[in-house]
Amino acid sequence: MFAEIVTVGDELLTGNTVDSNSAFIAQKLTERGYWVKRITTVGDDVEDIKTVIRESLSRKPEVLIIAGGLGPTHDDVTMLALAKALDIELELREDALKRIEQFYLELYEKGLVDDPKINDARKKMAYLPKGAEMLNNSVGAAPGAFLVHEKTKIFVLPGMPKEMKAMLEEEVLPRLGKKTFVQRKLLAEITDESKLAPILNETLGKFKVRIHSSPKGFGKYIGIIIFGESEEEVEKAKKFMEEKGIMFEEV
Amino acid sequence: MFAEIVTVGDELLTGNTVDSNSAFIAQKLTERGYWVKRITTVGDDVEDIKTVIRESLSRKPEVLIIAGGLGPTHDDVTMLALAKALDIELELREDALKRIEQFYLELYEKGLVDDPKINDARKKMAYLPKGAEMLNNSVGAAPGAFLVHEKTKIFVLPGMPKEMKAMLEEEVLPRLGKKTFVQRKLLAEITDESKLAPILNETLGKFKVRIHSSPKGFGKYIGIIIFGESEEEVEKAKKFMEEKGIMFEEV
Repeated sequence: MFAEIVTVGDELLTGNTVDSNSAFIAQKLTERGYWVKRITTVGDDVEDIKTVIRESLSRKPEVLIIAGGLGPTHDDVTMLALAKALDIELELREDALKRIEQFYLELYEKGLVDDPKINDARKKMAYLPKGAEMLNNSVGAAPGAFLVHEKTKIFVLPGMPKEMKAMLEEEVLPRLGKKTFVQRKLLAEITDESKLAPILNETLGKFKVRIHSSPKGFGKYIGIIIFGESEEEVEKAKKFMEEKGIMFEEV
Repeated sequence: MFAEIVTVGDELLTGNTVDSNSAFIAQKLTERGYWVKRITTVGDDVEDIKTVIRESLSRKPEVLIIAGGLGPTHDDVTMLALAKALDIELELREDALKRIEQFYLELYEKGLVDDPKINDARKKMAYLPKGAEMLNNSVGAAPGAFLVHEKTKIFVLPGMPKEMKAMLEEEVLPRLGKKTFVQRKLLAEITDESKLAPILNETLGKFKVRIHSSPKGFGKYIGIIIFGESEEEVEKAKKFMEEKGIMFEEV
């Protein structure tokens, strides 16, 4: 099962914001057993977003999560871009509009906005691609969307981390089933990195695991993450490597 | 002038590491007047990296910066993937090998490695795509590479942030010329977001600037960044928007 992530926002492409969303999403997908194969970041441009979505769909991931560009401002165009990518229309959704009205009414009652009424900018957030399921935003205004294109489950989430995280936990993960991956982080103490490669390759051949390695400083340690479908499989892979002479510390 | 960034590393795709490198690179490129149009993150897989590089080159950016996957471990395969993407060979570079030998000798003298000698893993970092210029790594072992493909300047940098930043400052930016962009961050106080869009569009039509907007919380403020080739142009755009009724605070 593989997945892709698309994050949208000019602020990511100018470096004004570090894209922490994609790491959060990637971690949750990895825990569920999805292998994230690509993350693409693109600006607030309808054509660019459309192109990136089409390219991703052409690779047929089981899951595509798109985050960012759902707000009320002029450059929030992700829903439109998704609709264009799929050759479908946007439609005004009464359920979404009601939710948005309620949200601004609450802000108004708290004194956070001067006017509780729906205007064009706020109404814009109630347009979803035709046939999409609305995803509830429990901490913000803009609803998300869920739809299935061929074999790909597409989820569209807001870009504000607090809203994205809530929607991912409450609306996305429950739709992804229960299968989980186990990951174990270790430090391998080795004084010669070249000895590690053949042992890793042998381990990968024997057990149903994936292994990531990355140097931590120089010479003494290499960070190792073992991913597997069960604790048992991960433990067996770890034991095997230890028998081959690698000394591990848990992180 | 537009640019793309590719970051490489399984740890980015599992969410174990937040990709702060691409934001740092994006910021420096933006300051130099490059418009970063896409950031792609891909894992430590030769075929995947090759594919992503070819796709990026097909969009003909003026600059492509690739970061990550240059180390001594088995899954550091970026140089090989780049060579394959360009249909050229890797070659052992004596200048790179000497630099790496010197680096490990210094680590040995500091007691950080047990053995100062070149082994296969260390030697691997001395292979660069044929015809590439070596980029010096002033704080780590792995050299980077610079080459020009058609009209694209391709830079390959290490993934460790400290090394990436040093190489970007010392080796990449001096090769990108002197043109700079000015950016001004502002908060626009508006109580109706829908009023902003037409003013932004009018401003974009009148001045040589780019403008990003993003909501900060709800209702009262919208973050605005004006980008332009000179302080004067940015100031004129700001004045124009103020005349149209937008109240700004400097951030």
